[in-house]
Amino acid sequence: MELKQKPYMQSKKIYVPGKMFPDIRVAMREIHIDDPKTPIIPVYDTSGPYADPDAIIDLEKGLSRFRTKWIEERGDCEVNEKGIFSAKPGKKISQMDYAKRGIITKEMEYAAIRENQNLETLGLGNGSPITPEFVRDEIAAGRAILPANINHPECEPMLIGPKFLVKINANIGNSAVASSIEEEVEKMAWAVRWGADTVMDLSTGKNIHETREWILRNSPVPIGTVPLYQALEKVNGKPEDLTWEIFRDTIIEQAEQGVDYFTMHAGLLLSHVEHTLKRTTGIVSRGGSIMAYWQIKHNKENFIYEHFHEVCEICAKYDIAISLGDGLRPGSIADANDEAQFAELDTLGELTKIAWDYGVQVIIEGPGHVPMHKIQDNMARQIEKCHGAPFYTLGPLTTDIAPGYDHITSAIGAAMIGWFGTAMLCYVTQKEHLGLPDRDDVREGVVTYKLAAHAADLAKGHFAAQVRDDALSRARFDFRWNDQFALSLDPERAIEFHDETLPGHQAKSSHFCSMCGPNFCSMRMSQVAREYIESKKDGK
Amino acid sequence: MELKQKPYMQSKKIYVPGKMFPDIRVAMREIHIDDPKTPIIPVYDTSGPYADPDAIIDLEKGLSRFRTKWIEERGDCEVNEKGIFSAKPGKKISQMDYAKRGIITKEMEYAAIRENQNLETLGLGNGSPITPEFVRDEIAAGRAILPANINHPECEPMLIGPKFLVKINANIGNSAVASSIEEEVEKMAWAVRWGADTVMDLSTGKNIHETREWILRNSPVPIGTVPLYQALEKVNGKPEDLTWEIFRDTIIEQAEQGVDYFTMHAGLLLSHVEHTLKRTTGIVSRGGSIMAYWQIKHNKENFIYEHFHEVCEICAKYDIAISLGDGLRPGSIADANDEAQFAELDTLGELTKIAWDYGVQVIIEGPGHVPMHKIQDNMARQIEKCHGAPFYTLGPLTTDIAPGYDHITSAIGAAMIGWFGTAMLCYVTQKEHLGLPDRDDVREGVVTYKLAAHAADLAKGHFAAQVRDDALSRARFDFRWNDQFALSLDPERAIEFHDETLPGHQAKSSHFCSMCGPNFCSMRMSQVAREYIESKKDGK
Repeated sequence: MELKQKPYMQSKKIYVPGKMFPDIRVAMREIHIDDPKTPIIPVYDTSGPYADPDAIIDLEKGLSRFRTKWIEERGDCEVNEKGIFSAKPGKKISQMDYAKRGIITKEMEYAAIRENQNLETLGLGNGSPITPEFVRDEIAAGRAILPANINHPECEPMLIGPKFLVKINANIGNSAVASSIEEEVEKMAWAVRWGADTVMDLSTGKNIHETREWILRNSPVPIGTVPLYQALEKVNGKPEDLTWEIFRDTIIEQAEQGVDYFTMHAGLLLSHVEHTLKRTTGIVSRGGSIMAYWQIKHNKENFIYEHFHEVCEICAKYDIAISLGDGLRPGSIADANDEAQFAELDTLGELTKIAWDYGVQVIIEGPGHVPMHKIQDNMARQIEKCHGAPFYTLGPLTTDIAPGYDHITSAIGAAMIGWFGTAMLCYVTQKEHLGLPDRDDVREGVVTYKLAAHAADLAKGHFAAQVRDDALSRARFDFRWNDQFALSLDPERAIEFHDETLPGHQAKSSHFCSMCGPNFCSMRMSQVAREYIESKKDGK
Repeated sequence: MELKQKPYMQSKKIYVPGKMFPDIRVAMREIHIDDPKTPIIPVYDTSGPYADPDAIIDLEKGLSRFRTKWIEERGDCEVNEKGIFSAKPGKKISQMDYAKRGIITKEMEYAAIRENQNLETLGLGNGSPITPEFVRDEIAAGRAILPANINHPECEPMLIGPKFLVKINANIGNSAVASSIEEEVEKMAWAVRWGADTVMDLSTGKNIHETREWILRNSPVPIGTVPLYQALEKVNGKPEDLTWEIFRDTIIEQAEQGVDYFTMHAGLLLSHVEHTLKRTTGIVSRGGSIMAYWQIKHNKENFIYEHFHEVCEICAKYDIAISLGDGLRPGSIADANDEAQFAELDTLGELTKIAWDYGVQVIIEGPGHVPMHKIQDNMARQIEKCHGAPFYTLGPLTTDIAPGYDHITSAIGAAMIGWFGTAMLCYVTQKEHLGLPDRDDVREGVVTYKLAAHAADLAKGHFAAQVRDDALSRARFDFRWNDQFALSLDPERAIEFHDETLPGHQAKSSHFCSMCGPNFCSMRMSQVAREYIESKKDGK
């Protein structure tokens, strides 16, 4: 397996100590450039140790369990004979519960420092409003989550909320048709290299438990799952054979392994299903269709909804966040913003309040397929109906006519909804609707979503967002080609494209590129004009 | 040269006769699918004869000059010994002038029928407001252009205006560093296959005249140029040696060849240049930097501005549209919506009125690099300052940090500004800022912009836009894989991706795909649920 990644270009992994908690070491990356104004550009880093040349990666051993000490020292958890952590009876141990009680955890300070990207120490950005206190208050109010199962101590704390950097999720997972455990673990490491903030393991084939174990022990980012997929495997793929007991045992099994957030299709009620009959594409969520099928076959209400209090008790015990799934998200432009979708959203709002009562952190899943003019309405309704819980959307795709390019049809919608306030964007790869993403598709999908999230951060006016853009623009204007590459989201791609027409070391310092050729560069001409005007001014 | 293209999948080229003018034959494409509700989906077609299996392509001879007869029968043009058409003295022959006089030309009816995509005869769409009269009125008001130089009779008439389908432009052109005439003609044919509505030949190297001649004689779409580039070649690349006379001779030379629209950086004034000094990336428009350099060196006002009346006289004589260039468009997120950009826009508004007085059709070029929250302001100002003339933007890119992915950073901005009312989107390829696009980049860029334009059409509520989306969504829900491919913007890509995991003929009719595998398809499960509910209803 090739898990160890190439180091990032002109970059150094750094670890910033906490102020409240000097023993925490917040991982980030510095890009070193040849710009006297800003020689160091610190950036958010999701890659864990994988791109750190000094790190030793041992898959069998897993990553450092640095958070175990933090959990132990709080004294409110117990460990069983298998080494599994859970809350002591009567103790509430979720980040939300600590926040409500006014406590700032090490996880919160870690995440606050991480959002700040160390910019303040370099005098960059426009001054951060993100303090550990601010993080605590956002989590307490339910407007942000810090997904960190106490059984996933390898996970570097991060925040999902509209007042923080827009995050992206990459889905991986084998299906009955394709791929192996090795490939999935490699995809996870690959996804975080390119910038995935969380990874969902959506495996549906064999070896679900084992695949997930390998991913969790080696993942520096929160891992999400849809427990229903594994439950379905346990009943040999027959949805009608599902029971609450099988589902409950599955979430406990996954909770003990360390899954950080569960997608639960708890809000899809029997009364909603009929709304889907007039749809062009019915129900396209896998979890949604399973639940709808079960309910219709048994003529009974959704068992996750019926047992939602028990679900919350389990999640609270391990600090697992719930991602309330949108089982009735539209599967086509024709079905966007319809009755079915919005009826379910109302129920997700009810469930949010219940989960919060248990101290369980919540995010709300959203569409899907939405034309541009209907995107804002999705965001506004979600905020209203779900009491400000963070929104987590899949795209949305803004047209259906470009299979093979759905990373782009959806990046348009994702950037827009991110600007409007969506906290996390689930990537869509170019293979969507056609096949399973391979390694290259994961890279293309993650970078595409990273740029969409960043475009949203710029538009939201996030204090740190413009620093990297400006540094890259200056490098471009100064013909510092290597700095331009190093500051980009995908330096290897940029270099490859540049070198196709102008290879060689010398071209990297040329004051032109192949687009215009050596006699015709607008930027050089503009610089000459600038110098000329300035020289005339000096002469006066 | 490989100009003849593969026929489109499950498609037939059709030619719809006019109602006012029964001798016109409007080219379009029908996609034939296995859907009793909509067995035929007609679509807009920019490919000319290149994908028509029955057409004979002879590069030396060029395409059919079908419009020559239309021009001759109007009786207001003369032909010189070289076969070059121009207006007879005292005659006004532009589409705008005809429209102002209440005349509907064959070009106008052609373009109206084309926009309607023959949907009304099939009972599809929501009823078209686009009649030849409507087209005429939009052109007369300056809100749309129909670019069609009388010396480019091979060109299939089309419209650029906010009330019509959003159009896209593909730039091609060799530079001093790379590519040949053959490659450029091939790129043109390739670009129109994928959906380019116009093509700009931005050649800057040798053989500019000859390259353009080959492109024009074989192009079914309007061709635009930046005449300044050729003028600069004539003075050996020294901007200070440019003169009005050289420029004038160049536009006449190109007018006689048949260029349909000229980008002219006429609005960049001496007083604007100083505003660029505080910029992060100065002047990034090639034409803009040449004009700025010339003005500073000579301390004189822009010669295109000074001679704008003469420019208009020339354009009116051949019916060439002017695309007023934004020489001061921002080259980075940092410079978006600044004083320099908006000062030039005001001048473009003045020039628009002058051109209209000559009956010259006008579009206004726009940025460039703009973060999402500043896009709407661009559109609103352009409409206000330029009196409703159509807007033609380059992207805009919504972040600078993703070189190698700038087709995507810009497709986000393009889709949004198209929704807000931009009439034509100039594509940006993934090679932007790094190198010249090759054949694959042209395809990727054109399809990306086609999907962005279509997303904008959906959001604008264009009467025809949703027909294809709905047909594709139904094909997806019915597992009609081949129909799904045939209806997509790039069937070859979709098939290639599908077949990577599930090759073979049988998989094309499978009721599952490799994403979920055979036991787990949400759409199939949803269909089963639907049938179940309906059977229960019938039973009652």
